Amino acid sequence: MTATKVVAFGGGHGLSASLRALRHCVPGLDLDITAVVTVGDDGGSSGRLRAERGGLPPGDLRQALVALAGDHPATRRSAALFQHRFAAAAPAPTPAAPLTSAAGDPLAGHAVGNLLLHGLTELLGDPVAALDHAGAMLGAVGRVLPMSRQPVGIEARVRGVDPARPDEVRTVRGQHQVAVTSGTVESLRLTPAAPAACAEAVSAVRAADWLIFGPGSWYTSVLPHLLVPGLADAIVSSSARRLVTLNLVAEKETSGLSLPDHLDTLRRYLPELKVDMVLADSTAVGDPVAVERAAESLGARLVLAPVAVTDGTPRHDPAALGAALVPVLGADR
Amino acid sequence: MTATKVVAFGGGHGLSASLRALRHCVPGLDLDITAVVTVGDDGGSSGRLRAERGGLPPGDLRQALVALAGDHPATRRSAALFQHRFAAAAPAPTPAAPLTSAAGDPLAGHAVGNLLLHGLTELLGDPVAALDHAGAMLGAVGRVLPMSRQPVGIEARVRGVDPARPDEVRTVRGQHQVAVTSGTVESLRLTPAAPAACAEAVSAVRAADWLIFGPGSWYTSVLPHLLVPGLADAIVSSSARRLVTLNLVAEKETSGLSLPDHLDTLRRYLPELKVDMVLADSTAVGDPVAVERAAESLGARLVLAPVAVTDGTPRHDPAALGAALVPVLGADR
Repeated sequence: MTATKVVAFGGGHGLSASLRALRHCVPGLDLDITAVVTVGDDGGSSGRLRAERGGLPPGDLRQALVALAGDHPATRRSAALFQHRFAAAAPAPTPAAPLTSAAGDPLAGHAVGNLLLHGLTELLGDPVAALDHAGAMLGAVGRVLPMSRQPVGIEARVRGVDPARPDEVRTVRGQHQVAVTSGTVESLRLTPAAPAACAEAVSAVRAADWLIFGPGSWYTSVLPHLLVPGLADAIVSSSARRLVTLNLVAEKETSGLSLPDHLDTLRRYLPELKVDMVLADSTAVGDPVAVERAAESLGARLVLAPVAVTDGTPRHDPAALGAALVPVLGADR
Repeated sequence: MTATKVVAFGGGHGLSASLRALRHCVPGLDLDITAVVTVGDDGGSSGRLRAERGGLPPGDLRQALVALAGDHPATRRSAALFQHRFAAAAPAPTPAAPLTSAAGDPLAGHAVGNLLLHGLTELLGDPVAALDHAGAMLGAVGRVLPMSRQPVGIEARVRGVDPARPDEVRTVRGQHQVAVTSGTVESLRLTPAAPAACAEAVSAVRAADWLIFGPGSWYTSVLPHLLVPGLADAIVSSSARRLVTLNLVAEKETSGLSLPDHLDTLRRYLPELKVDMVLADSTAVGDPVAVERAAESLGARLVLAPVAVTDGTPRHDPAALGAALVPVLGADR
């Protein structure tokens, strides 16, 4: 029996949760996992690298690699190294005489894995080759691909950015600014508007048995995939089944956006999209009838399961989410 | 039969040549290889890291790790990553709107492996643990250790730094400055004068069958080991046999220092040192009688062999040096 090919779309923490959950499905299910990652990040270490040196923002790609890193102690330590952020180190007083004084701290805050991915891309000349090698270094149990080989910008038209002018619509530029805006996102676009899809990601979508969207920051991690024309075409025309995993709470960028609204935005940005299953947390779902109706309008069946951690924080529990995914991904067509 | 335990001392390129040669002895000989590396570097990427963030200068440690990296294509690619230096990249013009302008290029010139070793040391809290993990990442066929867990300064009293004052003796501070001085080194010291030896290096010396000194920059890569009291004690009291591999040409720091002088400096800085073998290139040796006499004064037999590359550049050929080492290291006591 061949492995079930699963492609998970997302960006940062939400995609990591999805990937960790998929790992919990193994070995009960034989899965071939591919992560397809947004490349719009412009904050933090990734934003600095991108602004100073160009290339893809590595942070979300790194998070996905680490989520798939092998369980061997050595690969776990390498994963910890990828995640380690350089401390804001005061130089140790050393007895060596000729050292120049500390002129600044240009490494502080960079994740080691971000620098490593950037260096690998310089060395190998291609971000996909770099990700494949980094995956090998981490003993990754799946493949990580960017949605596009070129970095993109994310722009939103947002209503009420200024609370004093609740009806004014402004353009908010940059993934970070969109993610933290206090207004209501009215529309979303990428710059350039139609970036080229990563060919390997398109191939993975075409060959997939399941496509999984979410959880994650809806506007900045989930919807951008639907705005890459080549990827959107592959998603719509793939014979794969499609699953949407809903968030547990509204994030800042989606405040005011209910779970049914989340599903409606998928259809808005990719009207041809059909979905087979929507998975939501039984407690977080709020009004299950409204969510069920929104799911049905995408052609999907709603599955409710306890998938949040039990400490009350709005995070998916990888084991619980994995347990909920097994019957979904393992079901006969 | 247990492996022959070999400890090779040095710094940068010379130590790499020695380690690559030792690899060429395998599998003809069953070797357990440990490299012990100077920690006085204050130039280039290592110097910047050390000045800005403290800790051991990683460059020479990285070179030794790479020289021992495994032959698998994946570990060879990781070794290439360790060696890769970030380009002085102009930021690629990206379409993303909110990027700040390039504020500088703080990564340019850093070797990826230097940043990785620095990050690993921060993460694991200990340079030896960091080196052991980096070795595992590279599938290294031996262990790399620093001569001390604390960085040291290198200072020399140098005659004739200023060609206009050929008899004036000045203090030159820093490994880089000592390495490039045009004067004649009269004496050498470390700061602090008596750094603590790396305990694992001392253990390796105590357990060794062979200790190998050189080739390498004599004042900045070879002699510093003899100035670390704990290491010098272990070297003198070890039951291991001792081999000195001489350089092919005088480097800048040793201009005016003949090959016999090289051997004499060993005795000057560690009078109790006894040596069993001195290996020199048959062509580069110049006056073999003088070298033989200097070797004998250390208790050593001179072995001449063609160990240089054949293109005329003064570099050791790892295969030729390895071929010369096999009968030496394989000889019964």
